[in-house]
Amino acid sequence: MAEDRFARDTAVVAAGPGSYRGRVDPGWAVVDGAAPNGGYLLAIVARAMQHETGPHPDPVSLTGHFLRPPQPGDVDIEVEVIRRGGRHTTVSARLLQDGAACVHLLGAFGDLTSAEGWDRVDLAPPDYPPLAECVDVTSAARARAAAGELPRFPIQERFDHRQPAELASWALGRPTGRGEMGGYLRLADAPDDAAMDPLGLLVVADCFAPAVFNTTAGLSSWVPTIELTVQLRAHPAPGYLAAAFSTRAITRGYLEEDGVVWDAAGNLVALSRQLALAPR
Amino acid sequence: MAEDRFARDTAVVAAGPGSYRGRVDPGWAVVDGAAPNGGYLLAIVARAMQHETGPHPDPVSLTGHFLRPPQPGDVDIEVEVIRRGGRHTTVSARLLQDGAACVHLLGAFGDLTSAEGWDRVDLAPPDYPPLAECVDVTSAARARAAAGELPRFPIQERFDHRQPAELASWALGRPTGRGEMGGYLRLADAPDDAAMDPLGLLVVADCFAPAVFNTTAGLSSWVPTIELTVQLRAHPAPGYLAAAFSTRAITRGYLEEDGVVWDAAGNLVALSRQLALAPR
Repeated sequence: MAEDRFARDTAVVAAGPGSYRGRVDPGWAVVDGAAPNGGYLLAIVARAMQHETGPHPDPVSLTGHFLRPPQPGDVDIEVEVIRRGGRHTTVSARLLQDGAACVHLLGAFGDLTSAEGWDRVDLAPPDYPPLAECVDVTSAARARAAAGELPRFPIQERFDHRQPAELASWALGRPTGRGEMGGYLRLADAPDDAAMDPLGLLVVADCFAPAVFNTTAGLSSWVPTIELTVQLRAHPAPGYLAAAFSTRAITRGYLEEDGVVWDAAGNLVALSRQLALAPR
Repeated sequence: MAEDRFARDTAVVAAGPGSYRGRVDPGWAVVDGAAPNGGYLLAIVARAMQHETGPHPDPVSLTGHFLRPPQPGDVDIEVEVIRRGGRHTTVSARLLQDGAACVHLLGAFGDLTSAEGWDRVDLAPPDYPPLAECVDVTSAARARAAAGELPRFPIQERFDHRQPAELASWALGRPTGRGEMGGYLRLADAPDDAAMDPLGLLVVADCFAPAVFNTTAGLSSWVPTIELTVQLRAHPAPGYLAAAFSTRAITRGYLEEDGVVWDAAGNLVALSRQLALAPR
């Protein structure tokens, strides 16, 4: 794989037994100058975890609890292998900055390229309009930032990001009225024939606007993630991914957001669920 | 709350800073003499975690990774508080037996009785037939075990467990053809006016037959859970709970099972998702 920006911005170097150094790049912040994307933080830590999981590079289930947002800059990652099994390695880790824990993770890693077993998917990829009929969300956000209408959203620039007009119109004050979000995307610097790094799916699971923004007009405040769990199911084929997110149960200020991610070949490649605090 | 069997069989005693002793009772095994129910193990550990989370007794998100099944008998629980926040306490824990880790957990605990915020639920409770028209699964299983047709399922005896005939008929060789399971239940020894201990929801999230058993005739082998995450959303009202489970994506032998649990007052009280290995 070429040294793309995602690879560079999630690279880690060994610093001792189970210890790694990484770097939070400001280019994956949700809003310019604000907290880095949670999925991006998971990807940095998962990169370090991969160094410890031997024959099991793929997080088939990875849970992250978000304790405090790190600033851009150096971070430390500590990885502890909990169990080495034949099929999975179970591992915990934390990301720290200046000695303070920012994210705590627990996951099971396997090998999706060699996994064999029953296949039966009773879900269908989302029936979005073709790519060419979708809104270029990245360009739209860039234009509105240039016009001073909105802040800059650095993580949007990392992706070539298209959404069906219906799902994107919440940003123009026209939500669908349902807790749904989604669209197509690939890394902005990906060659046409490049397949996304499986760890990129951790970012994909958390890089759309919150599905809750489509429930009601006027929502745009931060929806802090308490916990995010991603199940990787397959390495993506080259091309755009299609992702669909939904929020169906907001209770006492808590909400879940469920995601399903498909590759261009129609394979289900990831499931995600997060618990977050609803906007007030 | 009366000292019911669930309270007794999940009780822990302090054994040192962050250390607790508990006991795995054989009465919560899935099959007589086999592994204890995973949700039951989570409940034992969550009981110990509650001792460390101060004003935050409720696991709003609790993830458990299952490493090896413990035998009935004494277990040790080690709890580590990761972060004490105003709204949540984040905590990790492990359950060990004879020094070997059996379950590793990570969770965020809050206080659901004082939580306030937005409520909007775009899901409806399952439209099961009335309780009186459902199959008494507990009695049916007991009769078949007495007749020597099936092994005894100890955990079934812990619940008064009713299922719509359509969902229960997989056990008679008539699956629905879809990855779905569910029904009504309450603890077998609960007085009519008793509300279930919120930690009981951890068991409810994992105590039905796997939804995958309804996809295809002839499935009944073990579906080992790799990871189970439960979001508690509210303390249940008195009466029967209604729970619905679904499995929609079986890929390369991995499956998810999602659950939604409602109380008798129509409140959504828990969401669950697990990653498990499909029967071969």
